Amino acid sequence: MDKHLRQFDKELGELKNKLLLMASVAAKMTDHVITALADRDESIASDVDGLEQNVNRLQLEIDEIVLTLLATHQPVAADLRFLLAVTRISGELERIGDLAINISQNTRTLLQHPPVKPLIDIPKMAKAARDMLDKAMQALVKADPLLAQTVIMMDDIVDRLCDQVKDDLLTIMKQNSDTIVERALALILVARHLERIADHATNIAEDVIYMCQGKDVRHPKLSRE
Amino acid sequence: MDKHLRQFDKELGELKNKLLLMASVAAKMTDHVITALADRDESIASDVDGLEQNVNRLQLEIDEIVLTLLATHQPVAADLRFLLAVTRISGELERIGDLAINISQNTRTLLQHPPVKPLIDIPKMAKAARDMLDKAMQALVKADPLLAQTVIMMDDIVDRLCDQVKDDLLTIMKQNSDTIVERALALILVARHLERIADHATNIAEDVIYMCQGKDVRHPKLSRE
Repeated sequence: MDKHLRQFDKELGELKNKLLLMASVAAKMTDHVITALADRDESIASDVDGLEQNVNRLQLEIDEIVLTLLATHQPVAADLRFLLAVTRISGELERIGDLAINISQNTRTLLQHPPVKPLIDIPKMAKAARDMLDKAMQALVKADPLLAQTVIMMDDIVDRLCDQVKDDLLTIMKQNSDTIVERALALILVARHLERIADHATNIAEDVIYMCQGKDVRHPKLSRE
Repeated sequence: MDKHLRQFDKELGELKNKLLLMASVAAKMTDHVITALADRDESIASDVDGLEQNVNRLQLEIDEIVLTLLATHQPVAADLRFLLAVTRISGELERIGDLAINISQNTRTLLQHPPVKPLIDIPKMAKAARDMLDKAMQALVKADPLLAQTVIMMDDIVDRLCDQVKDDLLTIMKQNSDTIVERALALILVARHLERIADHATNIAEDVIYMCQGKDVRHPKLSRE
């Protein structure tokens, strides 16, 4: 292998590590805000704003590296697909960071008042969404489209839990008026943010399949036509 | 100009037209669902599912063209930035289509019952969000970063309207329990979907600035450091 190619491979490896670091920061943000909500301890979420700055900075750095590698090495085929997948995935991770910030804002509202009800489905949703993110990033590292496929299938579980949370809270809102409404709404929004985190993990899994197979699975109804 | 370059320019022009077509379909979806909600006429929204298929198909086509152009012409500098901006913008437009579908689902719930209140701020939000999308796409066509900047500034108006809608409906929900709660929640979600459409228009404007200036303005707090 010539020196130029070795250098390029080294740079691709460094880029992948930076993306994994970005994923771990976005995952940590999600963990902290959900623990803060479940344990009713706002101090646990206090570092999320700082972590979001890290996520944003990593996205800019990653996209800059992708641009430089595209311009200087003019890759084709698998390397080109990898670079495009990396820039898409960094966008998904940045959105996960944004959603963790949204959850932390809802958590702040919720912790000012007594709990609406014991949290059961929301921690389940969070666990499933985080599991999807971990598996999607593992699928990237292993270039494993089958593992990515399992992530896509898990999304239904999160969607069903989200509907369940919404139905339960709507029932509570209908039975009690006034003070409980705002908190119940905040919990519904937390569930929706978690649902969207799972959607972004699904998008990452789809990007991994695209990267591995050169097959775009983002809109399956169209691909099958 | 040699034949190869002329051909490349022609292909870039066709790609831009396809992206403009995709934007016009996403815009039409938003218009139809908001008119259906405001005029209480579900039939107006009946074509949004078909339009979403068009949006999804255009995204796949656009990303395929970008990949082919990157691989065959190996562009650098402004052309490379244009191609990366196109693939990001097609992602934003696809999400706008998804949000219009979400609004149509909430609209279906809302039209099964009498109106909660006269709609004032939601149509205002929709008008502002659509205006932002139009201006962002004009900024792309004209490669005009100043016009793109005005889009970014408009986002605050939509955010404030969204907060207003939420506060008004929370007040209604607190005063009335039972049947009104579900409809009020559906309206709050419509407002949030519109807020996110405006966010995607903002992202497009940021991509246009990046394309024109090679300057990434997605995380201004970081860039200014």
